[in-house]
Amino acid sequence: MTDLEIAQKAEMVRISKLAEEKLGIPDEHLEPYGHYKAKLSLSYLDSLKERPDGKLILVTAISPTPAGEGKTTTSVGLTDALNRIGKKTVACLREPSLGPCFGLKGGAAGGGYAQVVPMEDINLHFTGDFHAIGLANNLLAAMVDNHIHHGNALGIDQRRVVWRRVVDMNDRALREITVALGGLGNGFPRTDGFDIVVASEVMAIFCLATSRSELKQRLGNIIVGYTRKREPIRARDLDANGAMAALLKDAFKPNIVQTLEGNIAFVHGGPFANIAHGCNSVIATKSALKLADYVVTEAGFGADLGAEKFVNIKCRKSGLRPDVAVVVATIRALKYHGGQPLSDLTTENLEALEVGSRNLKRHVRNIRERFGLPAVVAINRFSSDTDAEIEQLKRCLSHLQVKVVLAEHWEKGGAGAEELAHEVLNVIDDSPSNLRFIYDDNTSLWEKMETVATRIYGASKVVADTKVHKELKRLEDEGFGNCPVCVAKTPYSFSTDPKLLGAPEDHVVKVREVRLAAGAEFVVMICGDVMTMPGLPKQPAAARIDLSSDGRISGLF
Amino acid sequence: MTDLEIAQKAEMVRISKLAEEKLGIPDEHLEPYGHYKAKLSLSYLDSLKERPDGKLILVTAISPTPAGEGKTTTSVGLTDALNRIGKKTVACLREPSLGPCFGLKGGAAGGGYAQVVPMEDINLHFTGDFHAIGLANNLLAAMVDNHIHHGNALGIDQRRVVWRRVVDMNDRALREITVALGGLGNGFPRTDGFDIVVASEVMAIFCLATSRSELKQRLGNIIVGYTRKREPIRARDLDANGAMAALLKDAFKPNIVQTLEGNIAFVHGGPFANIAHGCNSVIATKSALKLADYVVTEAGFGADLGAEKFVNIKCRKSGLRPDVAVVVATIRALKYHGGQPLSDLTTENLEALEVGSRNLKRHVRNIRERFGLPAVVAINRFSSDTDAEIEQLKRCLSHLQVKVVLAEHWEKGGAGAEELAHEVLNVIDDSPSNLRFIYDDNTSLWEKMETVATRIYGASKVVADTKVHKELKRLEDEGFGNCPVCVAKTPYSFSTDPKLLGAPEDHVVKVREVRLAAGAEFVVMICGDVMTMPGLPKQPAAARIDLSSDGRISGLF
Repeated sequence: MTDLEIAQKAEMVRISKLAEEKLGIPDEHLEPYGHYKAKLSLSYLDSLKERPDGKLILVTAISPTPAGEGKTTTSVGLTDALNRIGKKTVACLREPSLGPCFGLKGGAAGGGYAQVVPMEDINLHFTGDFHAIGLANNLLAAMVDNHIHHGNALGIDQRRVVWRRVVDMNDRALREITVALGGLGNGFPRTDGFDIVVASEVMAIFCLATSRSELKQRLGNIIVGYTRKREPIRARDLDANGAMAALLKDAFKPNIVQTLEGNIAFVHGGPFANIAHGCNSVIATKSALKLADYVVTEAGFGADLGAEKFVNIKCRKSGLRPDVAVVVATIRALKYHGGQPLSDLTTENLEALEVGSRNLKRHVRNIRERFGLPAVVAINRFSSDTDAEIEQLKRCLSHLQVKVVLAEHWEKGGAGAEELAHEVLNVIDDSPSNLRFIYDDNTSLWEKMETVATRIYGASKVVADTKVHKELKRLEDEGFGNCPVCVAKTPYSFSTDPKLLGAPEDHVVKVREVRLAAGAEFVVMICGDVMTMPGLPKQPAAARIDLSSDGRISGLF
Repeated sequence: MTDLEIAQKAEMVRISKLAEEKLGIPDEHLEPYGHYKAKLSLSYLDSLKERPDGKLILVTAISPTPAGEGKTTTSVGLTDALNRIGKKTVACLREPSLGPCFGLKGGAAGGGYAQVVPMEDINLHFTGDFHAIGLANNLLAAMVDNHIHHGNALGIDQRRVVWRRVVDMNDRALREITVALGGLGNGFPRTDGFDIVVASEVMAIFCLATSRSELKQRLGNIIVGYTRKREPIRARDLDANGAMAALLKDAFKPNIVQTLEGNIAFVHGGPFANIAHGCNSVIATKSALKLADYVVTEAGFGADLGAEKFVNIKCRKSGLRPDVAVVVATIRALKYHGGQPLSDLTTENLEALEVGSRNLKRHVRNIRERFGLPAVVAINRFSSDTDAEIEQLKRCLSHLQVKVVLAEHWEKGGAGAEELAHEVLNVIDDSPSNLRFIYDDNTSLWEKMETVATRIYGASKVVADTKVHKELKRLEDEGFGNCPVCVAKTPYSFSTDPKLLGAPEDHVVKVREVRLAAGAEFVVMICGDVMTMPGLPKQPAAARIDLSSDGRISGLF
């Protein structure tokens, strides 16, 4: 059965009933969206402030490969397993981007018997959050061009407009466009482009803000462009942030849904993990910690990007403190990291596994030594994994004295991850976490970048053109020096070369470009090609997606 | 108090409770979106097929003026009044477009004490229908450019792509753009543009389809462009219509909300009234007729555009048959039609009123003589209206023997429209309707246009360049000759000149361009400048819209 077929067979419980039963959330504080999705009222969440926080479990992974690792699947499976063994646990996941569903990727709500449902709804419009974020972004864009058209009192230099439009669709034709053609009535022509919604700074802000007033404040800080004298023009200068916040009024409330086993999952927000920090909303995670004893959350891509940003951006700003990290890997993916070709990952290859496991080892070491978090390794099991391979992997990791647990939640649901759940609990009890930021706020932007590259990526040095250094100096002069850095690089390698698998050393990281996210309050260090608008493949998934006359969707994976 | 303040003071009843109490809709067939909005399941609506239909009341108006007429307000007020006098009545309204809320216009959910609520939700994202429609439109656009990029097996001539992208925002910079710039990886550059979502053919199809399968079928019929040999390429040829229908799965279910007086209103779909037919969805109106004894619905703009298309497009295709038409006018607007300047509409001017009332008279005559519908005139009362003016207007209309009723629902809610309600019931009882289409399916497209222009607009003739005639011939050769015509012209005049107020005669209508809506199944006759993407004004409403820290929206009118 496909993921969609499994999801469609699920017997869901009404979310209002489940929220009451599992977390004691009174019906009047739940805003239903259909019978199986709901938003939580912010006034209710405010009322929980004095409650103690639950334990926070961060699920991260090795550097991603085309073989798949199953980070979301593991987050869901672990949540179900913890509930099975009597621990009140919720998952906190990112909302999937709608656009990629029509491309190659398919859905992003877990897989097999470790999914959140209703799967089609979550993957398509869900509760409309991304639409609201997209429109808030595009309202600001329209207000920028409108201001220039109607006299440009603020003196925006139209060559220096940096705010792009967004759409939740893989549409390469919109990457580079010229707008305002057609004469006087249509404004001043300029080059522009669309990003996918998850790449919008509004999304990053949405996921970092802890209250409506902070949301509005940060939206106001967005820099949309500069004057000829390079003075920044902010959303606030256009009086745009009030209306943007109004558009986000409901979206900002966390969404809850259920796992296939009837446990609660918060699914809220989903910024890109390259040019943004790649984690679900702070407000969802903070709320979940008040409502459950254990919260399982995930960070995007591998631990070099996802966990690094989780710690140094999300935790730094929000005060969140994870108690343990689960590092997800598969034997298949590790063999791929060790040079085994994608077409032949089912063949036993102990040598490739040994070489590839260096990728996992470096991530585990980073998590423990750099971030100060205790770690558990979860091997998301495939039927092709041989006993010899499993033994080999355990041997490779033995000197790290990290627990390596096989998990079969994909096939067996929560029952398949019970051992993992027990180990996670053991580690929480036995190994107190001691979260550290790898750099201080007042370190220079360049040193922050060097710290991430050398200490996390294993790079020998960081280089950049004079232009980049000048730009960093300008940002520091303008008061943005205390922002954390958000590195945008390939997720497939510790280095900036996607082909350098495993655990490359002595590589050089080149910063090509710097972008300020003044509202999100980080400085994006672009190290490589960063795709902010995907394209559809030759055979897009959209061509096989269908709706039956009785309303059933097919072809959505 | 502003409309928003009145709406925010409303004590709403939970929509599930109201739907059960008022219309007997069981809870399990209602999909709530928050506590005060809901969608109805299509399986439930299917189960009502054998029930008899209620009576259908069409609310239309004089040619619109900047003074405002209050068509939606009257629809809501009349619905409340009919309920007050014991008649089970629901309203069927269009969903407002979000974009214009940030421009000049403000909201579109009625006004004063005749509104549908929750006002902010209805005016902003509501239940996400327009977002779904926009994405279905944009998925098709992305698939067109993607097909061309990946080898163009269908041989689409990129100069002849006719499918545009959409966004629900007033954004003039997107009217004319060039896309796919930036080199090989981004596709083949071409000129393109964005329309506002309500102008999408997907919206028109959505509002005309009676089932999911018809929806998918019509989406498949959309023509996205032509080959070099001018052979049409349809959405179906790209296998896009299944995924488009999947995106519309939930949107297609009718929405219900409540009036300020706690009566049910269906608010579903909202196509442009110029390049489309301008009425709420057929599925909403048909469902409402099964659930209530009286259904009050509205058509866009004045009766020359809105009611004409309601009859000749919506009724023709759907089998809907209104029982009576209510023609809304105001003394102020009629004086404006008679030449009184906008700045001085509160001054009594019997002469201007007499001249301007010709506009109303022609609309009433058209409705009765051309469409075969009994009519009632509703004067939406303003405090500046003098007794002499009211007497004068009644005198002007006396030879038509039409009932003229003053209505004060804006100030008094349903109580202010009780007399109107009684008159509407009298007319339904005493004057059976005899709906006629003003042309037959098998009349030529040109003759259909001539019939509309001469019989409805009072034009002396219709002219067009050879190019237009050739295009019409081509459409007839290709089998589209039996489509109805959908005239896109200024709403402000019976003629194509927005300055010719009142009831101009002997004017000439020029067809400038013809566009086929192969999925919506009508041929758009463009007679004048048609704006499919509005712009923001110098002081956009967005700049005053705000969100308080406790989640209250202000500045939305």
